Amino acid sequence: MTELSPLTFFPAIDVVGTFVFAISGTLTAADKKLDPFGASVIAFATALGGGTVRDLLLNLRPIWVQDERYLIAVFVAVVVAVVFRRQIGRLRRTMFLFDTVGIAIFTVLGMEKALRLGVPPLIALVMGVVSAVFGGVVRDILCNEIPLIFRREVYATACLAGGAAYLVMGLSPVGLGLRVWVAIGIIILIRVLAVKYRWAFPNLRPEQ
Amino acid sequence: MTELSPLTFFPAIDVVGTFVFAISGTLTAADKKLDPFGASVIAFATALGGGTVRDLLLNLRPIWVQDERYLIAVFVAVVVAVVFRRQIGRLRRTMFLFDTVGIAIFTVLGMEKALRLGVPPLIALVMGVVSAVFGGVVRDILCNEIPLIFRREVYATACLAGGAAYLVMGLSPVGLGLRVWVAIGIIILIRVLAVKYRWAFPNLRPEQ
Amino acid sequence: MTELSPLTFFPAIDVVGTFVFAISGTLTAADKKLDPFGASVIAFATALGGGTVRDLLLNLRPIWVQDERYLIAVFVAVVVAVVFRRQIGRLRRTMFLFDTVGIAIFTVLGMEKALRLGVPPLIALVMGVVSAVFGGVVRDILCNEIPLIFRREVYATACLAGGAAYLVMGLSPVGLGLRVWVAIGIIILIRVLAVKYRWAFPNLRPEQ
Repeated sequence: MTELSPLTFFPAIDVVGTFVFAISGTLTAADKKLDPFGASVIAFATALGGGTVRDLLLNLRPIWVQDERYLIAVFVAVVVAVVFRRQIGRLRRTMFLFDTVGIAIFTVLGMEKALRLGVPPLIALVMGVVSAVFGGVVRDILCNEIPLIFRREVYATACLAGGAAYLVMGLSPVGLGLRVWVAIGIIILIRVLAVKYRWAFPNLRPEQ
Repeated sequence: MTELSPLTFFPAIDVVGTFVFAISGTLTAADKKLDPFGASVIAFATALGGGTVRDLLLNLRPIWVQDERYLIAVFVAVVVAVVFRRQIGRLRRTMFLFDTVGIAIFTVLGMEKALRLGVPPLIALVMGVVSAVFGGVVRDILCNEIPLIFRREVYATACLAGGAAYLVMGLSPVGLGLRVWVAIGIIILIRVLAVKYRWAFPNLRPEQ
Repeated sequence: MTELSPLTFFPAIDVVGTFVFAISGTLTAADKKLDPFGASVIAFATALGGGTVRDLLLNLRPIWVQDERYLIAVFVAVVVAVVFRRQIGRLRRTMFLFDTVGIAIFTVLGMEKALRLGVPPLIALVMGVVSAVFGGVVRDILCNEIPLIFRREVYATACLAGGAAYLVMGLSPVGLGLRVWVAIGIIILIRVLAVKYRWAFPNLRPEQ
C-alpha cells in the first residue's frame, strides 16, 4: 500500500472534487439571491478558482481550458444543487467531509505540480495552499464579502501543516506514496479536530 | 453579402467598442464619486477587462499591452464622457444599442480566437461570453458591488444563446460569414426583447 | 554620480520595498480584525500584488514564484508588524517616506521591465504605475473596500508624472542614470507636496 499513491486516482478525484466544491458554491449563491447564471459563475469560481489562480501564477493555461469535463462537472453540480437543495441541506456533515478530503488532495496535487515545474519548495507550498483555498476567496470576492478564511477558519493552516510535512518527508527516504497519504491525513485530521473543538486563531486587533 | 463577414471590420469595430464601453464605465464611476484617476481605471476595466481575463486564461498577452490604440480610445472616452456628461445622459437608448452590438461582436470574436487556439468548443463558448461580459464584472468588483449580471440581466444568456447557435451552425455547411451575422443577430434580438419585455430569471432563494 | 544608476541597487531595494509594503499591509489587516493567516495574505497582496498583476499582463511568471526571498521578506514583516505594532504606530512619518521611495522605485523598475520586453512606451508607463499602486488595489479588494487610490490620493498621478518625465527624457541625450534619479525625484516630490498641502482632484459627480 505504501507504493500505491493516491496520485494514481487523481484524474477522477479531481473531477469529483470539482463537483463537490461546485455544489457548495451553488448553495452560497442561493443564499445571495443570485440568478442561475450568477450561481453558475459562483459555483465555477468556488470549484476551479484556486487551481486557476495557481496556474496563472505558474504561467500555465488552466486545466479546465483544455478539458471540458471540469466545466460539465460544474454545470451538473449546479443543476443537482438547485433541484435537490432541501436534501443536500441535510447532508452538511457529508459535505464537510467531502470538502475536507478535497482540500487535502488539492493541496498535495498543487504542490507536486509546482515542484515538477522547478518552483522552490516554499513557493510550492504556497501554490498548494492557493490551489486548495483560493476558490473560496474568489467566491467571497465575487459575492462582495471579506473572504471567510481570512477571519475564522483554521482551514488554510491545516493545508499549510500537511504541505509542510510533505516537504519535510521529502528530505527523508520516505516513499512518495506514503508521503502523500501522511500529508493528506494530517490536513484532514487538523481540520476535523479544529471544527470539533472550535480551534481558532485570535484575530489581530488594532492597538487601543 | 453572405461571404462578407463582419470579421473583416473587426480591427476598427474593436476600438470603437472599447470607446463605447469606456464611456459607460466613466458614467458608472461618476455615480461612485471617484476622482479622474479612479474613473479612468474603471473605464479601462469596463472596456478591456473581459478580453484581458480571456487572454490571461488562454495564456496570451492581452492585445492592449501590444497596441496603444486601445488605451488611447479609453483615455479619449473618459475625457468625452466627463465633458459631455449631460448630453450623453440623453442618449441612453443609443448607448444601449451600441453596448448591445458591442457584446454581440465581442462574443463571436472571443469564441473565434479561442477556437483557433485549439480550445474545445464548449470552453470557447465560455471564452466568448467572458470576453463580452467580464468587463462589467471587473468594474463592479472594483466599485465594491455584487456584479450586476449575477442578479438581474439576461445579458450573459443572450451571449450564450448566440454563441451556442454559432457552434451548432459550425456543424452544418453554413458559411462563416452567415454564421457570424446570425449569431450576432440572435444576441442583439434576445437582449433587445429582454429589456423591452423585462425578461428576467427568477433568483435562487434559500430554502425556507 | 550621473552614471551610478539606482538600478544597480535594485535587487536589495526590491526586497526592502517588499518588506516595508508588507508591514503597512499587516497594519491594515489588524484594523480589519483578520486572523494571522488573513493578515499574511493581505500583507503579501499589498507588497507583491502590483508586480504580480504587471507580470501576469506581460505573460511572465511573477518574480516571487522563482525567488523565495520575497515570500520570506513578507513573512518576517508580518511577524515584526504584529510584535512591534505600538512602536510602528509612532513611526508613521518614516513609514510614509519609505512607502514613497518604494512606489517611486517600483514605477521606474516596472517601466524598464516592460520597455525591455518591447512594450510600447505608453503601455510601459501604465505597467510602471500598475507595479507601484496595484498592490494597494488588490489589498482593498480583498478587504472589501473601494480602492482608496480611486478616491482620494494623488498617489497614482505622482507615478504617472514621474514615469512620463522618464519617457520624455528618453527622447533626449540624457543618460540612463540621471533619468532614473530625476523620475524618482519627481514622484517623491509630488507625493510629499500633495500630502503636505492636501492636494486632491475633485471627485466626479453625477449630473444633478
